[in-house]
Amino acid sequence: MNQVINTLLAHRSIRKFKDEKVTEEQISLIVKSAQAASTSSNIQAYSIIGISDEKTKETLAHLAGDQSYVANNGIFLVFCADLYRHEIIAQKEKVDFSTTLDSTEKFMVATIDASLAAQNAAIAAESLGLGVCYIGGLRNNLHEVSDLLNTPKRVVPLFGLAIGYPAHQPDVKPRLATTAVYHENRYNQSISKTEQDIANYDQKMTEYYESRNSNKRVDTWSKQIVKKLTTPTRMYIKKFLSDKHFPLK
Amino acid sequence: MNQVINTLLAHRSIRKFKDEKVTEEQISLIVKSAQAASTSSNIQAYSIIGISDEKTKETLAHLAGDQSYVANNGIFLVFCADLYRHEIIAQKEKVDFSTTLDSTEKFMVATIDASLAAQNAAIAAESLGLGVCYIGGLRNNLHEVSDLLNTPKRVVPLFGLAIGYPAHQPDVKPRLATTAVYHENRYNQSISKTEQDIANYDQKMTEYYESRNSNKRVDTWSKQIVKKLTTPTRMYIKKFLSDKHFPLK
Repeated sequence: MNQVINTLLAHRSIRKFKDEKVTEEQISLIVKSAQAASTSSNIQAYSIIGISDEKTKETLAHLAGDQSYVANNGIFLVFCADLYRHEIIAQKEKVDFSTTLDSTEKFMVATIDASLAAQNAAIAAESLGLGVCYIGGLRNNLHEVSDLLNTPKRVVPLFGLAIGYPAHQPDVKPRLATTAVYHENRYNQSISKTEQDIANYDQKMTEYYESRNSNKRVDTWSKQIVKKLTTPTRMYIKKFLSDKHFPLK
Repeated sequence: MNQVINTLLAHRSIRKFKDEKVTEEQISLIVKSAQAASTSSNIQAYSIIGISDEKTKETLAHLAGDQSYVANNGIFLVFCADLYRHEIIAQKEKVDFSTTLDSTEKFMVATIDASLAAQNAAIAAESLGLGVCYIGGLRNNLHEVSDLLNTPKRVVPLFGLAIGYPAHQPDVKPRLATTAVYHENRYNQSISKTEQDIANYDQKMTEYYESRNSNKRVDTWSKQIVKKLTTPTRMYIKKFLSDKHFPLK
């Protein structure tokens, strides 16, 4: 173990921040850390929009499903898949990238690039004593988010990252057993093994919810997943991507 | 600055590893670190396949475009978007998740989840004195990779991560200026500003390639991007995803 791994293992999502801004210097370190992440063939197919304007944050908080911590934090970063710069290169150099930029592959590249950068940002922030919370809720209303943030074609806001000084200390949430997500040399498709993994985790989560400091409840992972996945949400995303010149060909 | 941020900023891709295995204990720390990353509503929609078998590694190295470091490393991890466990829950609980699991949204969730986990793994490895290299080349031949690794429907191998003791110390590659990827409050669509950002980076990369310790060459980022994006690659991916029950609806 070392300080880095301690930081990684101590992660919990922070949903209540002190009323204290993150400094320009901290933001700079966080963004530089994000940029140091690996990127597919150095394509750097992402952008970060840092939201400090209170009104913009409040609108985003509403669009993300009225999550107060989207507005009340030290800084709010929006991570975008971004092939706009590459489009500008194509225009300047009078070449045609459209087949490539329209592909599912390049959407994956941009989404993965943005995610690797975001996780570096999250870790850098946590190492500075800040807390973070990823906000997938931005994808509830991407057309509106895109209008608000002025993102052009070939750019997709993927998720937000609320950053600030923690005003609470939630417990670390247990995960699936390592043996459930880690396979040696070949994927183990066994249904009975997978069902047992899920049952074990249900048991662990039941104990966690019974014992945790706040917001105790009776629940299992399976029940949460059933609740979550029986209700289709964000089914317009394919259309949004197409509108933004990500036709996923 | 601190040890964590120093680790993040010191990242370079390692493509030559010493002939030394990564230990079980190290792998366990790396995988536990991966699992500590944020996951959308705790869905944990990813899996990791750890490849230690030499023959499997050699086949993967060939499938990834004959990249030797896919075979010659301390351990090779394959990160997969994974909704298979969720499918098993649906069967067990006799509910229907198909609309949800078929959606573009859930493919994004799984891809982002896997990427956040992977970046935690990369950082944990680097903090242990190991080097890493992401291998997008797995996507050259996903049908074959999937057959080799026995991945079921609702699972997509996204990329690999070669891990091992570094046998070289490449320079840290410069990135686009922070002002090129970071926008304040609203995305700056200015074409002239973007062209200037690209020109500045071309200049920086020219200087980097002229000055670096090994593999000196004359090149710019724009030229690399033109070369890369005028040649469509991996256009079969949409079909692979559909074959694996990711129809991106």
